[in-house]
Amino acid sequence: MLELLRELGAALRIPTSFVIIEFIGTMAFAISGIRLASSKRFDWFGAFIVGMATAIGGGTLRDLMLGVSPFWLTNNIYIIWCLVSLFWVVIFGKYLIRQKNTWFIFDTIGLALFNVIGIEKTLQMGFPTWTAIIMGCITGAAGGVIRDILINEVPLIFRKEIYAMACIAGGVVYIVGHVYLGFSSELNALFSSIVVMAVRILAVRYGWHLPVLKGEEDQK
Amino acid sequence: MLELLRELGAALRIPTSFVIIEFIGTMAFAISGIRLASSKRFDWFGAFIVGMATAIGGGTLRDLMLGVSPFWLTNNIYIIWCLVSLFWVVIFGKYLIRQKNTWFIFDTIGLALFNVIGIEKTLQMGFPTWTAIIMGCITGAAGGVIRDILINEVPLIFRKEIYAMACIAGGVVYIVGHVYLGFSSELNALFSSIVVMAVRILAVRYGWHLPVLKGEEDQK
Amino acid sequence: MLELLRELGAALRIPTSFVIIEFIGTMAFAISGIRLASSKRFDWFGAFIVGMATAIGGGTLRDLMLGVSPFWLTNNIYIIWCLVSLFWVVIFGKYLIRQKNTWFIFDTIGLALFNVIGIEKTLQMGFPTWTAIIMGCITGAAGGVIRDILINEVPLIFRKEIYAMACIAGGVVYIVGHVYLGFSSELNALFSSIVVMAVRILAVRYGWHLPVLKGEEDQK
Repeated sequence: MLELLRELGAALRIPTSFVIIEFIGTMAFAISGIRLASSKRFDWFGAFIVGMATAIGGGTLRDLMLGVSPFWLTNNIYIIWCLVSLFWVVIFGKYLIRQKNTWFIFDTIGLALFNVIGIEKTLQMGFPTWTAIIMGCITGAAGGVIRDILINEVPLIFRKEIYAMACIAGGVVYIVGHVYLGFSSELNALFSSIVVMAVRILAVRYGWHLPVLKGEEDQK
Repeated sequence: MLELLRELGAALRIPTSFVIIEFIGTMAFAISGIRLASSKRFDWFGAFIVGMATAIGGGTLRDLMLGVSPFWLTNNIYIIWCLVSLFWVVIFGKYLIRQKNTWFIFDTIGLALFNVIGIEKTLQMGFPTWTAIIMGCITGAAGGVIRDILINEVPLIFRKEIYAMACIAGGVVYIVGHVYLGFSSELNALFSSIVVMAVRILAVRYGWHLPVLKGEEDQK
Repeated sequence: MLELLRELGAALRIPTSFVIIEFIGTMAFAISGIRLASSKRFDWFGAFIVGMATAIGGGTLRDLMLGVSPFWLTNNIYIIWCLVSLFWVVIFGKYLIRQKNTWFIFDTIGLALFNVIGIEKTLQMGFPTWTAIIMGCITGAAGGVIRDILINEVPLIFRKEIYAMACIAGGVVYIVGHVYLGFSSELNALFSSIVVMAVRILAVRYGWHLPVLKGEEDQK
């Protein structure tokens, strides 16, 4: 198994630890989608698609905008991870509430990683730094929006969670390190990830949220 | 009329029979969208857009992912077929329930054909075989998902119908014939289509469905 | 400020007046999205994203279909305008009802301009004239559809407003002038814009609407 991950990492020219984190993040995202689908009584196929959309939807939207084919079209490992996530929920469904904190941590790690992947891919393609921050945010947060559209709910991150703002904070840290401080990309990725995870964990812990925009009917 | 279809087929380098089947499939898909839009009291324009999205949405998503311009941007025949479908519903609306079985057959033929078109286009562009199976499924089934998002309903295929699974079964048959048995693409298309239609017809006839994913609240 | 707009215009090779109109149109579209988001009690981030989607969603969909990177990825002025729109609503929210007619006019001007931009970009890329009409319509009207999907409502333009039909009327005028009358692109843009604005204003003034498609249950 570790050998497989090492080979995959070599093929993709990324370190093994990175592949393990990506696996954890993808599964955490997919499981969040599959659980929401199950609460809507979707069948296995529907739940799998919602899980896929949550896990790879953000990266797919990023790749379409950057003008390249979605990353998962040439590497079937992402679909396999989503299938593993589906069977995890089928088998361990009743224990998932008990695993809640574990998956929250994995989800947060995944968010930080997806953000960094989006930033680095955008910079490598020669786009401006502010575009990279937005693409990092899309990679991390758009999957959840697509998930909520598919289950016909108002997107959660538009009303409650500090999710996208954590990505933007981490993105700014990455770009500052990249442009002004001349840090290596490893160091930028590390600092950026720490910021994303810290903002998200603190936001959940202390109930941080953005102000709600007052509707006109409130102001009469 | 037949002459026109033959010319169109020659222009697209596909046989005339294929063009007729594509016409039938496109109309069946468009009519399914237009009927759902009418049940939501959309105006003609809204109904036309939902019909278009149902008929060409899957192929559009496939083309965007494969990195080519959507197929209908350079050939206005698809928009004409969708307009014909709109006027068909406007004029024959009250007879559509009586035509139900006919349109079910046409819809199933369309599904089988769209699946094959998606598979062959993806293979021709040099993507892996499993990507082709997924792209066939997207070509056939994603239009219905976009339709349901536009009319603000939970996508039907995530809860009830064996629609995408029929595409996947047909896709596996195509790829097995293509890679392991060395069949011609005509033969693969034929066998694949038969499997898609058989699975879909039997599923509706015998009420086949995938298991529903149990939500956590069910397991307390 | 005017100097900045002139420079921007020079960089984009468009006249200054054009940049001012685009600014007005983008803000009008963004504000319409932000106001709807506020009625759903979105937070500032959610409202900003819905505003962005309304203002640049149509052009983004057009660019993805034409096979180029979305226009706003290489010029951050659009995001700045959407941020300005957000703060406008935050600060002047309670006066927006009184500004209603002003924003209706700005929204209509924006629609006319976005339509022309979509038509000209599509023609420049060598697509057929009918594709240009559709892409103009998508540039002007698809942002509102994406907005309504994000706030989980049935798209407004499918049921009520003459919005897309105004674009199509203006598009036909543009293409007739372009192909048959040999007018300059400035003249075509002017005539097309006048038609779009006239159709939209008259439609709202006199309550024009397309016929509703009768559902089958109505005809029993």
